[in-house]
Amino acid sequence: MLETLLYPKAIAVIGASRNPDKVGYAVLANLVNNGFKGPIVPVNLDADEILGLKCYKSLGEYKDPIDLSIIMVGGKYVKDALQSSIKAGAKSVIVITAGFKEVGVAGAKAEQELVEICRAGGVRMVGPNCLGVLNTDHHMNATFAPSVPPPGKISVISQSGALCVAILDWAAEQKLGLGKVISFGNKADLNEVDFIQTLAEDKETKVIAGYLESIKEGNKFLRIAEQAAAIKPVVILKVGITPAGAKAASSHTGSLAGADMAYGAAFKRAGVIRAENFEALFDYATAFAMQPLPNGERVAVITNAGGPGIMAADAAESSGLKMVSPSKESDAKLRAFMPAAGAFGNPIDVIGDADPDRYVKAFEVMQDDETIDAIVVVVTPQNMTKPLELAEKLGAASRRGGSKKPMLAVFMGGTEVAAAKEKLMALGIPNYPSPDRAVTALRAMCDYAAWKRRPARMVTRFPVNRRRVDRIINAQERSGITQIGEVEAKEILRAYDFNVLGGQLAQNDDEAVEIAERIGYPVVLKISSPDIIHKSDFGGVRINLANAEQVRDAFDLMMLRIQKRAPKAYLRGGFVEKMGQRGREVILGMTRDPQFGPMLMFGLGGIFVEVMKDVTFHLAPITAEEAMQMLKGTRSYALLQGARGQAPVDLEAIAGALQRISQLVTDYPEIMELDINPFIVGPVGVQAYVADARMTLSTVGKAHE
Amino acid sequence: MLETLLYPKAIAVIGASRNPDKVGYAVLANLVNNGFKGPIVPVNLDADEILGLKCYKSLGEYKDPIDLSIIMVGGKYVKDALQSSIKAGAKSVIVITAGFKEVGVAGAKAEQELVEICRAGGVRMVGPNCLGVLNTDHHMNATFAPSVPPPGKISVISQSGALCVAILDWAAEQKLGLGKVISFGNKADLNEVDFIQTLAEDKETKVIAGYLESIKEGNKFLRIAEQAAAIKPVVILKVGITPAGAKAASSHTGSLAGADMAYGAAFKRAGVIRAENFEALFDYATAFAMQPLPNGERVAVITNAGGPGIMAADAAESSGLKMVSPSKESDAKLRAFMPAAGAFGNPIDVIGDADPDRYVKAFEVMQDDETIDAIVVVVTPQNMTKPLELAEKLGAASRRGGSKKPMLAVFMGGTEVAAAKEKLMALGIPNYPSPDRAVTALRAMCDYAAWKRRPARMVTRFPVNRRRVDRIINAQERSGITQIGEVEAKEILRAYDFNVLGGQLAQNDDEAVEIAERIGYPVVLKISSPDIIHKSDFGGVRINLANAEQVRDAFDLMMLRIQKRAPKAYLRGGFVEKMGQRGREVILGMTRDPQFGPMLMFGLGGIFVEVMKDVTFHLAPITAEEAMQMLKGTRSYALLQGARGQAPVDLEAIAGALQRISQLVTDYPEIMELDINPFIVGPVGVQAYVADARMTLSTVGKAHE
Repeated sequence: MLETLLYPKAIAVIGASRNPDKVGYAVLANLVNNGFKGPIVPVNLDADEILGLKCYKSLGEYKDPIDLSIIMVGGKYVKDALQSSIKAGAKSVIVITAGFKEVGVAGAKAEQELVEICRAGGVRMVGPNCLGVLNTDHHMNATFAPSVPPPGKISVISQSGALCVAILDWAAEQKLGLGKVISFGNKADLNEVDFIQTLAEDKETKVIAGYLESIKEGNKFLRIAEQAAAIKPVVILKVGITPAGAKAASSHTGSLAGADMAYGAAFKRAGVIRAENFEALFDYATAFAMQPLPNGERVAVITNAGGPGIMAADAAESSGLKMVSPSKESDAKLRAFMPAAGAFGNPIDVIGDADPDRYVKAFEVMQDDETIDAIVVVVTPQNMTKPLELAEKLGAASRRGGSKKPMLAVFMGGTEVAAAKEKLMALGIPNYPSPDRAVTALRAMCDYAAWKRRPARMVTRFPVNRRRVDRIINAQERSGITQIGEVEAKEILRAYDFNVLGGQLAQNDDEAVEIAERIGYPVVLKISSPDIIHKSDFGGVRINLANAEQVRDAFDLMMLRIQKRAPKAYLRGGFVEKMGQRGREVILGMTRDPQFGPMLMFGLGGIFVEVMKDVTFHLAPITAEEAMQMLKGTRSYALLQGARGQAPVDLEAIAGALQRISQLVTDYPEIMELDINPFIVGPVGVQAYVADARMTLSTVGKAHE
Repeated sequence: MLETLLYPKAIAVIGASRNPDKVGYAVLANLVNNGFKGPIVPVNLDADEILGLKCYKSLGEYKDPIDLSIIMVGGKYVKDALQSSIKAGAKSVIVITAGFKEVGVAGAKAEQELVEICRAGGVRMVGPNCLGVLNTDHHMNATFAPSVPPPGKISVISQSGALCVAILDWAAEQKLGLGKVISFGNKADLNEVDFIQTLAEDKETKVIAGYLESIKEGNKFLRIAEQAAAIKPVVILKVGITPAGAKAASSHTGSLAGADMAYGAAFKRAGVIRAENFEALFDYATAFAMQPLPNGERVAVITNAGGPGIMAADAAESSGLKMVSPSKESDAKLRAFMPAAGAFGNPIDVIGDADPDRYVKAFEVMQDDETIDAIVVVVTPQNMTKPLELAEKLGAASRRGGSKKPMLAVFMGGTEVAAAKEKLMALGIPNYPSPDRAVTALRAMCDYAAWKRRPARMVTRFPVNRRRVDRIINAQERSGITQIGEVEAKEILRAYDFNVLGGQLAQNDDEAVEIAERIGYPVVLKISSPDIIHKSDFGGVRINLANAEQVRDAFDLMMLRIQKRAPKAYLRGGFVEKMGQRGREVILGMTRDPQFGPMLMFGLGGIFVEVMKDVTFHLAPITAEEAMQMLKGTRSYALLQGARGQAPVDLEAIAGALQRISQLVTDYPEIMELDINPFIVGPVGVQAYVADARMTLSTVGKAHE
């Protein structure tokens, strides 16, 4: 994919300039200086020659075909340049020129025109408003950045050109190798999804590192990113943790789910490694590019200084890695050559006077220890350390016998370890300035390895009565009311095999009593009104009504009072329902993220959700195992398992309910929000049931037809 | 303080060596090369001269006085060296030699001998087993580290010598100025408290940065650190977050409070800034050393790239800093010179083509804006940026008109910004590799500034009946039982003016009924046994007993069943108590940290403590405001305020109870643990009461006599 963008044979540079201060000069110079092997065709109205290359007044003058065109003429000339590029045979264009969507409505319109020209001409466009594209594997630097890093296995995509400049400059200084670097600016045509797909297929790329501010096509992103992550690590820094803010959420689920939750859920699902900050992006990418994945979470720390060893241990333990003691065999091996003052547990302290050989011996013992999955080597520059020699020897040892155990280094200090750091980089050993950073990178490796080992996703399909749901939703849509109240919501859920207690709508007190007599006491009475969402707040719920008199009194009082409190509410009547058994209240919900679609929520009811915000999210469709993970992800999970002497609840019943919600909201994209609150669950053997529920439909009508 | 250690006039070097591989050479060479201005007296059995200095076979041969002696002879000669140093007039000694407490019992004994010799001789000792001491203000490098940083305002104390080497090397490379650097090794005599006190008084030191693995004298540390923090920032990285582990805790409070909680509480009390990791230690220290404290939490971000601007905004918002919009006046000023494509909110985006002048103008507008407390300037190296010139101009602008507003810089990139970074360092502007790190440092500045502004601590003393408590505790101690059960614990609490419901111990069913009749129904019956701590687990609590028959039945059944379930338990009888009103259950507790003494705990009862671990800690004695902060620090605080339609509870009653516990455990150091669980609190006007309580006494007898 995108062969002509990344591996073009001939490149046109439209807007090439003689003025070294101009972008049009910088791009041309970069192409020349980076040693691009094919023809470079500068187009400039005035110049005959720039940087020793013959210039053309228009691309039409050049008679051979080109396949990539880089455009950086003034805004109003971009359209012409694009058209002449298409005429000259370009299949890819990079529009560096800015002043489009980012500057307002007129710019957005002009940008849309470019897209249409591209579509019509069968070319793909990067940009506009970008830094350009670098492919070190093809000696092609089609950017205007001043620095070029060496070739390498990490490919970078960035929504910010300015940040890209800083990344290239930093990588060049660090001698960190990069493969493809794509700044995609306004992503009018090609966007992150295209680049992830392309780089996933690119054999030279081992890791995809991305900086994103937004995602354009949520569902496609999910699909492509998951496919890419199955092949190689995709590490993404997504900025802009915006509060849910403007979003008008009428459900509990909606108000608890911010956009950032959705990104978190999407990345998790797709196996995308999320970098928490800028440093983490390259900390992780470097580890993935240079080292094999660990088979487990057991880490050994080798150090020549107690303090940094403790730092590593602290970081490992608080991130959930396992600081296990070396095996008995390893212990014996270590004692054979280490001084008695060393520490043989974990961290293994080879102590301050360790020379490179002692370090390497300890390293090899850990490499051979099957109870250890990964090794962190911490080094402070002491008298006997010889950091450069140590780096060389560790490099050799790390590849010994085709070892597949990852190692990360932490050479602390400045000038004394500078040469060693460069050597480590050259030898493919990631080095970190502090133990914490190394451990955090290792944590990311373990998470990705676990994702790769995950069982195949099998979403269960339950037999359901869709016809019945169609009928209810159609009727609701005809009525034009997007809020589905308790009565209809429960009917829908019943059609998806939820246990819903018997009940019926009563329009007056006589009917209420009649229904109660039929279903049997005790009963619950709830107000039914499309205008009243949180019934309890209006005194719209009365429980445990034990006889006809209580039902009658409750009905009349409820109608009287609610008419006073909410005089404008349309009251359909009172819903009389069999009183359910007591049990643990949980809340099950769904909100539809504009990017990633239906996102399920689970939490314990009441205070746990409203005060403690103790909820978990997962994108639908969901598997049985993922549903169970949602339960386990809450802090209050222990309560469901039976903490404090209570009977454990039927966890499978909750997980099953989440899966059925998943199926319902996948089947009916017009359901925008859904709350089952509460869902009452007791011990295994007692049937769980829906005590209350509501849904919101899309205002744009039926989307699934 | 420690004048002869940090500013000696003449230094003896006992164990000086001719062999450049030896520590004895390195220290001497460092002293000479760093330009120490007084006499340096090498002592070596064989050499006549080292590094051009006359050598002495013994210190006795040197006739002039010395005031500091550095000892690095072999372990068994240290004692002699120490004695000869004292004889020669030394008031301070640095023992670099290792092989003492850190290698076992014999070493510990030898170390103790050194301490005794020091005490007898009136000298203070650094070490043994340390790197030495550097004072750049006195041209004295008495360490064996290979690198020396330039002079500066940050002084460092470190429990790890090896880490100290890395710090010095790193600081030298970064050209980060350090003042005093003290590696104190085994801290047999002088420890962190002495050094913090000394550096607090040291006029050349602006910030104290410390690396600690343990703290030797908790209470003294608290007192001295708080005094020091009142003068200058004390930033400490404390490693070794050990799980509570071996500690046998019988109280809820004890089991929830790990050692790390105590350090957290102690640092907070003392105003010590806690660095979460190694990089944070110097990120914070640099900010404090170079910039004034902010007056508030409102931060402006100026950037020439959208992405890093968003990163800064994300970090600021998630750390609780306020990204306010510039004032109207500022907005107008910005619009006067910024291009229309810029962003005028916050972050202020001067956009990619900003030259240094545009940056500086925007900076000055923010500097003059009274609604802004701090400024973060983010720079990526674009075509027009000229990073070095920008650094120079920002440096000048930052001192303009004696500005007292802190600024932090984030120059991102590599080679292109390298010179600018050095310039920033020279100009006293802290620079960070990523927006997150700058924002986290600013957060630390805000926290310290808030601590400095805190109101004076006024601990309320309540009138109490100490004689009664003395009597109960004396009786308990005579009995040899360290567990104080409900009955006596409540008596003690009553003497400290807690509201405790009426009740009495019954030894048989007749007595139980008699007591119930006297105090009035309904009553509660609870088992009374020193062997049964968690009564409910044994069926030892029955509530709401409404008449004589119920009391009699409950009593007999309880005794019968508990004898079966806990046949070895000594049963004193059943405690019959007035049934209290319902209310919110909270838990109030205290556990005594071995380092920092009594640590109070607050949490909502039941699941909130046991499942959600939603508790806060504070060292006693506590003020009214601090007690209220403990309440507000829990996630479940909203419940106390009346979330979910419930009446708010009497917050003052809880805060008052915490203060009275504080007074009790301060008055009686023999109380090791205390749980009031639950403390029942209702709305304001309804008296809160102790529903159950227990305490544990020290096994070592009365400590307060």
